[in-house]
Amino acid sequence: MNPTPIENTQDARVEFARASDLDAMAELLAELFALEGDFHPEREKQLAGLRLVLENPDAGQLFVLRAGNRVGGMANALITVSTAEGKKVVLLEDVIVAKDFRRRRFGRLLVETVCEWAGARGFSRLTLLADKTNESALVFYQSLGFTHSTMRVLRKKLA
Amino acid sequence: MNPTPIENTQDARVEFARASDLDAMAELLAELFALEGDFHPEREKQLAGLRLVLENPDAGQLFVLRAGNRVGGMANALITVSTAEGKKVVLLEDVIVAKDFRRRRFGRLLVETVCEWAGARGFSRLTLLADKTNESALVFYQSLGFTHSTMRVLRKKLA
Repeated sequence: MNPTPIENTQDARVEFARASDLDAMAELLAELFALEGDFHPEREKQLAGLRLVLENPDAGQLFVLRAGNRVGGMANALITVSTAEGKKVVLLEDVIVAKDFRRRRFGRLLVETVCEWAGARGFSRLTLLADKTNESALVFYQSLGFTHSTMRVLRKKLA
Repeated sequence: MNPTPIENTQDARVEFARASDLDAMAELLAELFALEGDFHPEREKQLAGLRLVLENPDAGQLFVLRAGNRVGGMANALITVSTAEGKKVVLLEDVIVAKDFRRRRFGRLLVETVCEWAGARGFSRLTLLADKTNESALVFYQSLGFTHSTMRVLRKKLA
Protein backbone atom coordinates (compact mmCIF):
# COMPACT_ATOMS: atom_id res chain seq x y z
CA MET A 1 0.00 0.00 0.00
CA ASN A 2 1.25 3.47 -0.88
CA PRO A 3 1.89 5.23 2.45
CA THR A 4 1.07 8.64 0.93
CA PRO A 5 -2.05 8.45 -1.21
CA ILE A 6 -2.62 11.58 -3.28
CA GLU A 7 -5.64 12.58 -1.18
CA ASN A 8 -3.32 13.04 1.82
CA THR A 9 -1.05 15.46 -0.02
CA GLN A 10 -3.81 17.89 -1.02
CA ASP A 11 -3.03 20.00 2.03
CA ALA A 12 0.72 19.95 1.44
CA ARG A 13 2.37 23.20 2.50
CA VAL A 14 5.86 24.57 2.97
CA GLU A 15 6.87 25.51 6.51
CA PHE A 16 9.97 26.25 8.55
CA ALA A 17 11.39 22.97 9.85
CA ARG A 18 11.21 21.99 13.52
CA ALA A 19 13.47 19.77 15.61
CA SER A 20 10.92 16.96 15.28
CA ASP A 21 11.43 17.00 11.48
CA LEU A 22 15.16 16.24 11.60
CA ASP A 23 14.87 12.45 11.34
CA ALA A 24 12.68 12.68 8.26
CA MET A 25 15.01 15.28 6.75
CA ALA A 26 18.04 13.03 7.29
CA GLU A 27 16.17 10.30 5.36
CA LEU A 28 15.56 12.69 2.49
CA LEU A 29 19.22 13.73 2.45
CA ALA A 30 20.27 10.09 2.26
CA GLU A 31 18.25 9.81 -0.93
CA LEU A 32 19.73 13.05 -2.31
CA PHE A 33 23.36 12.21 -1.56
CA ALA A 34 22.95 8.80 -3.17
CA LEU A 35 22.17 10.70 -6.41
CA GLU A 36 25.06 13.18 -6.32
CA GLY A 37 28.62 12.40 -7.38
CA ASP A 38 30.28 14.53 -4.69
CA PHE A 39 28.59 13.08 -1.62
CA HIS A 40 27.47 9.94 0.11
CA PRO A 41 24.98 9.54 2.95
CA GLU A 42 26.03 9.26 6.61
CA ARG A 43 23.04 9.70 8.90
CA GLU A 44 24.84 11.08 11.97
CA LYS A 45 26.58 13.70 9.85
CA GLN A 46 23.35 14.76 8.21
CA LEU A 47 21.63 15.12 11.60
CA ALA A 48 24.58 17.10 12.99
CA GLY A 49 24.59 19.44 9.98
CA LEU A 50 20.83 19.98 10.12
CA ARG A 51 21.06 20.77 13.85
CA LEU A 52 23.79 23.35 13.18
CA VAL A 53 21.38 25.21 10.90
CA LEU A 54 18.26 24.73 13.03
CA GLU A 55 20.01 26.01 16.16
CA ASN A 56 21.69 28.99 14.45
CA PRO A 57 19.13 31.16 12.66
CA ASP A 58 21.97 33.37 11.34
CA ALA A 59 23.42 30.32 9.56
CA GLY A 60 20.29 29.60 7.55
CA GLN A 61 16.69 28.47 7.47
CA LEU A 62 15.44 24.91 6.93
CA PHE A 63 12.16 24.40 5.10
CA VAL A 64 9.95 21.32 4.89
CA LEU A 65 7.13 20.33 2.60
CA ARG A 66 4.58 18.97 5.05
CA ALA A 67 1.49 16.86 4.23
CA GLY A 68 -0.39 15.68 7.30
CA ASN A 69 2.25 14.08 9.54
CA ARG A 70 4.65 13.47 6.69
CA VAL A 71 7.67 15.43 5.55
CA GLY A 72 7.56 15.06 1.78
CA GLY A 73 10.41 17.39 0.91
CA MET A 74 12.98 19.83 2.21
CA ALA A 75 15.26 22.74 1.36
CA ASN A 76 18.15 24.32 3.21
CA ALA A 77 18.62 28.07 2.69
CA LEU A 78 22.10 28.84 4.02
CA ILE A 79 22.86 32.52 4.58
CA THR A 80 26.19 34.02 3.57
CA VAL A 81 27.59 37.33 2.29
CA SER A 82 28.37 38.44 -1.26
CA THR A 83 31.01 41.13 -1.71
CA ALA A 84 29.78 41.46 -5.30
CA GLU A 85 26.24 42.25 -4.13
CA GLY A 86 27.22 44.01 -0.89
CA LYS A 87 24.46 42.06 0.83
CA LYS A 88 23.57 38.81 2.42
CA VAL A 89 22.76 36.10 -0.10
CA VAL A 90 21.41 32.56 0.02
CA LEU A 91 23.10 29.28 -0.82
CA LEU A 92 20.23 26.96 -1.61
CA GLU A 93 21.20 23.41 -0.71
CA ASP A 94 19.59 20.08 0.03
CA VAL A 95 16.48 20.53 -2.11
CA ILE A 96 14.68 17.22 -2.40
CA VAL A 97 11.12 15.96 -2.79
CA ALA A 98 10.36 12.36 -1.75
CA LYS A 99 9.64 9.94 -4.60
CA ASP A 100 5.93 9.62 -3.84
CA PHE A 101 5.51 13.41 -3.69
CA ARG A 102 6.97 14.06 -7.13
CA ARG A 103 5.26 15.19 -10.32
CA ARG A 104 2.80 17.35 -8.39
CA ARG A 105 4.73 20.65 -8.57
CA PHE A 106 5.75 20.43 -4.91
CA GLY A 107 9.39 21.05 -5.82
CA ARG A 108 8.34 24.26 -7.48
CA LEU A 109 6.27 25.27 -4.42
CA LEU A 110 9.26 24.54 -2.18
CA VAL A 111 11.80 26.58 -4.17
CA GLU A 112 9.36 29.44 -4.86
CA THR A 113 8.62 29.66 -1.13
CA VAL A 114 12.34 29.87 -0.34
CA CYS A 115 12.76 32.61 -3.00
CA GLU A 116 9.87 34.60 -1.49
CA TRP A 117 11.31 34.24 2.00
CA ALA A 118 14.77 35.31 0.76
CA GLY A 119 13.37 38.35 -1.06
CA ALA A 120 11.33 39.40 1.99
CA ARG A 121 14.47 39.16 4.14
CA GLY A 122 16.36 41.44 1.73
CA PHE A 123 18.71 38.79 0.42
CA SER A 124 19.71 39.69 -3.10
CA ARG A 125 20.63 36.40 -4.75
CA LEU A 126 20.31 32.64 -4.53
CA THR A 127 23.12 30.37 -5.66
CA LEU A 128 22.85 26.60 -5.88
CA LEU A 129 24.91 23.70 -7.12
CA ALA A 130 23.32 20.91 -9.15
CA ASP A 131 25.07 17.82 -10.43
CA LYS A 132 25.86 18.24 -14.13
CA THR A 133 24.44 14.77 -14.81
CA ASN A 134 21.11 15.62 -13.15
CA GLU A 135 19.41 16.95 -16.28
CA SER A 136 15.95 17.12 -14.70
CA ALA A 137 17.28 19.30 -11.87
CA LEU A 138 19.03 21.64 -14.33
CA VAL A 139 15.83 22.02 -16.38
CA PHE A 140 13.76 22.48 -13.22
CA TYR A 141 15.93 25.31 -11.86
CA GLN A 142 16.10 27.05 -15.22
CA SER A 143 12.29 27.01 -15.37
CA LEU A 144 12.34 28.83 -12.03
CA GLY A 145 14.58 31.62 -13.33
CA PHE A 146 17.99 30.28 -12.30
CA THR A 147 20.75 30.85 -14.86
CA HIS A 148 23.99 28.97 -15.40
CA SER A 149 27.19 30.56 -14.17
CA THR A 150 30.57 30.26 -15.89
CA MET A 151 32.16 29.32 -12.57
CA ARG A 152 33.68 25.92 -11.81
CA VAL A 153 33.39 24.35 -8.35
CA LEU A 154 36.58 23.20 -6.60
CA ARG A 155 36.82 21.54 -3.21
CA LYS A 156 39.48 20.60 -0.70
CA LYS A 157 38.84 18.32 2.27
CA LEU A 158 40.68 19.17 5.48
CA ALA A 159 42.15 16.45 7.68
CA MET B 1 58.50 54.30 -10.16
CA ASN B 2 57.20 50.96 -8.97
CA PRO B 3 55.32 51.66 -5.71
CA THR B 4 56.17 48.22 -4.34
CA PRO B 5 59.77 47.32 -5.00
CA ILE B 6 60.60 43.71 -4.26
CA GLU B 7 62.71 44.63 -1.22
CA ASN B 8 59.54 45.98 0.44
CA THR B 9 57.66 42.72 0.02
CA GLN B 10 60.28 40.56 1.74
CA ASP B 11 58.38 40.87 5.01
CA ALA B 12 55.01 40.10 3.41
CA ARG B 13 52.77 38.18 5.76
CA VAL B 14 49.15 37.04 5.92
CA GLU B 15 47.01 38.53 8.70
CA PHE B 16 43.38 38.95 9.65
CA ALA B 17 42.02 42.08 7.98
CA ARG B 18 41.19 45.23 9.95
CA ALA B 19 38.68 48.00 9.26
CA SER B 20 41.53 50.18 7.96
CA ASP B 21 42.19 47.60 5.20
CA LEU B 22 38.72 47.81 3.65
CA ASP B 23 39.51 50.51 1.08
CA ALA B 24 42.51 48.58 -0.24
CA MET B 25 40.45 45.38 -0.31
CA ALA B 26 37.68 47.07 -2.31
CA GLU B 27 40.35 48.07 -4.87
CA LEU B 28 41.53 44.48 -5.12
CA LEU B 29 37.96 43.25 -5.56
CA ALA B 30 37.44 45.73 -8.41
CA GLU B 31 40.35 44.08 -10.19
CA LEU B 32 39.00 40.57 -9.47
CA PHE B 33 35.43 41.28 -10.59
CA ALA B 34 36.71 42.82 -13.81
CA LEU B 35 38.19 39.35 -14.57
CA GLU B 36 35.14 37.23 -13.75
CA GLY B 37 32.21 36.72 -16.07
CA ASP B 38 29.57 36.67 -13.35
CA PHE B 39 30.39 39.95 -11.63
CA HIS B 40 31.30 43.58 -12.16
CA PRO B 41 32.83 46.04 -9.71
CA GLU B 42 30.77 48.52 -7.67
CA ARG B 43 32.85 50.03 -4.90
CA GLU B 44 30.07 50.79 -2.41
CA LYS B 45 28.75 47.23 -2.70
CA GLN B 46 32.20 45.74 -2.17
CA LEU B 47 32.73 47.89 0.94
CA ALA B 48 29.30 46.96 2.30
CA GLY B 49 29.92 43.25 1.73
CA LEU B 50 33.37 43.37 3.33
CA ARG B 51 31.94 45.20 6.36
CA LEU B 52 29.24 42.51 6.74
CA VAL B 53 32.01 39.93 7.11
CA LEU B 54 34.37 42.04 9.23
CA GLU B 55 31.61 42.92 11.69
CA ASN B 56 30.18 39.38 11.95
CA PRO B 57 32.89 36.88 12.90
CA ASP B 58 30.36 34.04 12.58
CA ALA B 59 29.88 34.98 8.91
CA GLY B 60 33.53 34.59 8.00
CA GLN B 61 37.09 35.80 8.29
CA LEU B 62 38.84 38.26 5.98
CA PHE B 63 42.58 37.81 5.38
CA VAL B 64 45.08 40.25 3.89
CA LEU B 65 48.57 39.81 2.53
CA ARG B 66 50.40 42.75 4.10
CA ALA B 67 53.82 44.14 3.12
CA GLY B 68 54.78 47.25 5.06
CA ASN B 69 51.79 49.59 4.76
CA ARG B 70 50.49 47.92 1.64
CA VAL B 71 47.73 45.35 1.19
CA GLY B 72 49.02 43.18 -1.63
CA GLY B 73 46.33 40.52 -1.58
CA MET B 74 43.22 39.26 0.14
CA ALA B 75 40.98 36.26 0.76
CA ASN B 76 37.48 35.94 2.19
CA ALA B 77 36.76 32.74 4.15
CA LEU B 78 32.98 32.64 4.52
CA ILE B 79 31.66 30.15 7.07
CA THR B 80 28.64 27.98 6.34
CA VAL B 81 27.33 24.51 7.18
CA SER B 82 27.54 21.28 5.22
CA THR B 83 24.87 18.65 5.85
CA ALA B 84 27.09 16.20 3.94
CA GLU B 85 29.98 16.80 6.36
CA GLY B 86 27.85 17.48 9.45
CA LYS B 87 30.17 20.38 10.22
CA LYS B 88 30.92 23.96 9.47
CA VAL B 89 32.77 24.44 6.20
CA VAL B 90 34.42 27.32 4.38
CA LEU B 91 33.45 29.02 1.14
CA LEU B 92 36.67 30.57 -0.06
CA GLU B 93 35.90 33.71 -2.05
CA ASP B 94 37.60 36.87 -3.22
CA VAL B 95 41.13 35.50 -3.47
CA ILE B 96 43.32 38.01 -5.27
CA VAL B 97 46.95 39.09 -5.28
CA ALA B 98 47.77 42.56 -6.68
CA LYS B 99 49.61 42.59 -10.00
CA ASP B 100 52.92 43.77 -8.57
CA PHE B 101 52.83 41.08 -5.87
CA ARG B 102 52.41 38.18 -8.27
CA ARG B 103 54.88 35.43 -9.22
CA ARG B 104 56.36 35.38 -5.72
CA ARG B 105 54.19 32.57 -4.29
CA PHE B 106 52.14 35.00 -2.20
CA GLY B 107 48.89 33.53 -3.55
CA ARG B 108 50.01 30.15 -2.28
CA LEU B 109 50.93 31.63 1.13
CA LEU B 110 47.51 33.28 1.30
CA VAL B 111 45.47 30.17 0.48
CA GLU B 112 47.64 27.87 2.61
CA THR B 113 47.18 30.23 5.56
CA VAL B 114 43.40 30.14 5.11
CA CYS B 115 43.50 26.32 4.93
CA GLU B 116 45.53 26.15 8.17
CA TRP B 117 43.15 28.54 9.92
CA ALA B 118 40.14 26.53 8.69
CA GLY B 119 41.65 23.22 9.84
CA ALA B 120 42.53 24.67 13.27
CA ARG B 121 38.94 25.91 13.63
CA GLY B 122 37.62 22.40 12.91
CA PHE B 123 36.11 23.24 9.54
CA SER B 124 36.14 20.14 7.39
CA ARG B 125 36.14 21.41 3.82
CA LEU B 126 36.82 24.42 1.61
CA THR B 127 34.78 25.06 -1.51
CA LEU B 128 35.52 27.75 -4.05
CA LEU B 129 34.29 28.87 -7.43
CA ALA B 130 36.74 29.82 -10.18
CA ASP B 131 35.85 31.10 -13.62
CA LYS B 132 36.17 28.26 -16.14
CA THR B 133 38.12 30.58 -18.47
CA ASN B 134 40.67 31.42 -15.76
CA GLU B 135 43.07 28.57 -16.53
CA SER B 136 45.85 29.88 -14.27
CA ALA B 137 43.48 29.95 -11.29
CA LEU B 138 42.29 26.40 -11.99
CA VAL B 139 45.89 25.12 -12.20
CA PHE B 140 46.85 27.09 -9.06
CA TYR B 141 44.04 25.61 -6.94
CA GLN B 142 44.70 22.09 -8.19
CA SER B 143 48.36 22.48 -7.16
CA LEU B 144 47.07 23.30 -3.66
CA GLY B 145 45.01 20.10 -3.42
CA PHE B 146 41.63 21.37 -4.63
CA THR B 147 39.74 18.95 -6.86
CA HIS B 148 37.06 19.63 -9.44
CA SER B 149 33.48 18.88 -8.52
CA THR B 150 30.85 17.59 -10.94
CA MET B 151 28.44 20.27 -9.75
CA ARG B 152 27.18 23.13 -11.89
CA VAL B 153 26.58 26.60 -10.43
CA LEU B 154 23.17 28.22 -10.93
CA ARG B 155 22.11 31.65 -9.74
CA LYS B 156 18.95 33.69 -9.43
CA LYS B 157 18.91 37.41 -8.65
CA LEU B 158 16.08 38.64 -6.45
CA ALA B 159 14.35 41.94 -7.13
